[in-house]
Amino acid sequence: MHQHRRSRDPGVNLDRRHHVVIIGGGFGGLQAARALRHVLVQVTLIDSRNFHLFQPLLYQVATGGLSAANIASPLRSILKRQPNARVLLEEVVDFDVDQRRVILRDGAVSYDTLIVAAGARHHYFGHPEWEQYAPSLKTVDDATAIRGRVLLAFEEAERESDSERRRGWLTFVIVGGGPTGVELAGAIGELSHHTLQNEFRAINPAHARIILVEGLDRILPTYPPKLSQKAAAALGRLGVIVMTQTTVTDIGPDSVTLRTRESEERMPSRTVLWAAGVEASPLATRLGQAAHANTDRAGRIMVEPDCSLSGHPEILVIGDMAHYRDASGKPLPGVAQVAIQEGRYAARLIEARLGGRSCPPFVYRDYGTMATIGRAAAVADLGWLWFSGYPAWLVWLFIHLMSLVGYQNRLLVLVQWAWNYFTRNRSARLITAAIRFRNTDRP
Amino acid sequence: MHQHRRSRDPGVNLDRRHHVVIIGGGFGGLQAARALRHVLVQVTLIDSRNFHLFQPLLYQVATGGLSAANIASPLRSILKRQPNARVLLEEVVDFDVDQRRVILRDGAVSYDTLIVAAGARHHYFGHPEWEQYAPSLKTVDDATAIRGRVLLAFEEAERESDSERRRGWLTFVIVGGGPTGVELAGAIGELSHHTLQNEFRAINPAHARIILVEGLDRILPTYPPKLSQKAAAALGRLGVIVMTQTTVTDIGPDSVTLRTRESEERMPSRTVLWAAGVEASPLATRLGQAAHANTDRAGRIMVEPDCSLSGHPEILVIGDMAHYRDASGKPLPGVAQVAIQEGRYAARLIEARLGGRSCPPFVYRDYGTMATIGRAAAVADLGWLWFSGYPAWLVWLFIHLMSLVGYQNRLLVLVQWAWNYFTRNRSARLITAAIRFRNTDRP
Repeated sequence: MHQHRRSRDPGVNLDRRHHVVIIGGGFGGLQAARALRHVLVQVTLIDSRNFHLFQPLLYQVATGGLSAANIASPLRSILKRQPNARVLLEEVVDFDVDQRRVILRDGAVSYDTLIVAAGARHHYFGHPEWEQYAPSLKTVDDATAIRGRVLLAFEEAERESDSERRRGWLTFVIVGGGPTGVELAGAIGELSHHTLQNEFRAINPAHARIILVEGLDRILPTYPPKLSQKAAAALGRLGVIVMTQTTVTDIGPDSVTLRTRESEERMPSRTVLWAAGVEASPLATRLGQAAHANTDRAGRIMVEPDCSLSGHPEILVIGDMAHYRDASGKPLPGVAQVAIQEGRYAARLIEARLGGRSCPPFVYRDYGTMATIGRAAAVADLGWLWFSGYPAWLVWLFIHLMSLVGYQNRLLVLVQWAWNYFTRNRSARLITAAIRFRNTDRP
Repeated sequence: MHQHRRSRDPGVNLDRRHHVVIIGGGFGGLQAARALRHVLVQVTLIDSRNFHLFQPLLYQVATGGLSAANIASPLRSILKRQPNARVLLEEVVDFDVDQRRVILRDGAVSYDTLIVAAGARHHYFGHPEWEQYAPSLKTVDDATAIRGRVLLAFEEAERESDSERRRGWLTFVIVGGGPTGVELAGAIGELSHHTLQNEFRAINPAHARIILVEGLDRILPTYPPKLSQKAAAALGRLGVIVMTQTTVTDIGPDSVTLRTRESEERMPSRTVLWAAGVEASPLATRLGQAAHANTDRAGRIMVEPDCSLSGHPEILVIGDMAHYRDASGKPLPGVAQVAIQEGRYAARLIEARLGGRSCPPFVYRDYGTMATIGRAAAVADLGWLWFSGYPAWLVWLFIHLMSLVGYQNRLLVLVQWAWNYFTRNRSARLITAAIRFRNTDRP
């Protein structure tokens, strides 16, 4: 059996078969690799991390509800039974589009077709110095760091005798009222009002102020207004203060300055979390320069109707890195569904080209969006139908459980959710050493 | 309900009640705190980490079988329903035994009785410079770092074209044939022979060399010789090479030098793990100086038959930090059972003293020791009975599951063990950013 597998090792065929190199093992890249499993190509998936991460649940890792491993799957494990795919744990540093080569930190890889799906990261609207005070949530390391900071803030408050400073430790500001910000704020509300109840002696965690800041006139601005209201009401029940039409003008080590239409206020806060702007991976800039491709204001690469680069049909850009205009002329949103569908399309396109067939342009099918707000509350917008509350939460649970890679992860997440639901406890509340004493240097 | 609880807040009684300060939330300290729950004292548990860690399973975190949170429980959560206890997340830096104060990194705490249970850490036999190349396994951060290094070694081997260097990446040396070394070696054997099967294209992970080095003439030297043989045979079946009567004379970034009775050999290896010597926490030295207490060669504090310090009956030292001679004159081993029983004894002693009663000296009851070797194999020595193989493994599973703090953790660990047993997969195989590219700077 083993011998048989080794003899089919596709590595030896590398020079003969059409070689598809995929950069990024997120939703788009992984989907493209999987969809190519029966196509006569050699696939190389390059990622600087050894796992696929189910980002929509990352906020639960950041708030101690789940362990990172529960929402991550090793890329090798996912692709082990796909003999035409190999995984390379490497960092991509540049592109040589003339020679059709991807330049790695250590070597290079040639391609026949290149799929770039390196995703996005947060950006700070021209204030990169805010990042150190207001971390954002994109990676596993971000999540464990945020988890540590949030938990540590309560610990610091417990030890703090000065009431003014204690107030700073117990004020949590989440910047950005999109789904991530709403879910983070809801989870911190749960944490302070229920999970941590009775655990402290000098403070009452339920007295924490949790503030969700949004620049527009309502949270979840891409949802129907009625759902924004429902979400705001659900957050209110968890003690979250929603401030709309409010922008952040400054962030320091122990404060955040908020500007409303009437006034500007400096608010003491030791824990500011950033869930606002998003920009494409820095690789987009590299690729844009190498292939003379246009980028939009968020750094995303403008792509053709078939997801390829103008003048470079052999380079496809998908997911959060791509600026794809749909029929109405609006760019597609940076959500998992877009990346997944583009990944599948990319595989179909490659198969068609190899067979000498043409392929119609990519069309995105919007199945809707959802967000949860703490326990047993959610909002869902399916386009033709929207609903909220307990039913939406159940649908949210089911869809997210089923979308996780690996049966074991589904079971582990289910167990933890059931537990959290009945006990309101969150067991994955570790403050790990790396961040343990980072934010204790008091003024 | 909440109001009632607040009014019983023991913080306000701090000045009136007998104040027991416990340093360390490991097996000994936590057990002492729990055992004092019905005693009319105020308990303050100080730890620099916010969780209790079930160290006997830490090697499973280091080899991707479990998540850290599954074997850790927040200290506050454990003690939330014990109103006479409070938790302080702080670092102890020194002792003022005359004033009966513990000096913290940030302030000080007065005590009436002090229980010191700060545990042990690995030591490198006078070669502290080896630590950077050969990490040891004591903390959660150690475990995630080791997990990253082991997994990264296979990744590096996959990318390496030079066969000599590839051999270095695929050679794992575990130093120390005690339970930790045996369990680590067995788990890495499982990983390379089963879990990673078919996941790589350029290498065969089963070709990895895993070497367990022990200075004495058999592994598990504190067990009956027959069990050492069984363990060695079980390791052999997992492809682990056991080298007894072998010592380490040097460790470098890409090699380890081993001396047998006949010869000395420098062996290329990029992954050396240290499971050999243990010494008391550096706090033992501080306490020894402050209280004029004697320490042994491993830095442990010599204690009286009631676990107190000579001349300082109000200071008790328990667990791995204490050198306690039993009736035969031998020091008790540094295992969880000793710490747990000493913790309970400390609470009993304090209660007796407060009641004006005397308390007989501490007596350790040895219930036996066990170790697992990969899947479905273990050895158990109960003193009056020893056994091995599948029955021992089942007993090991049961005892360890039941010893975990928290029902949720037991359930999560059970699910993962069942899964690993049937699929031989290990899902918690994350290489996190902090260590991702640490050991790639090639010579």
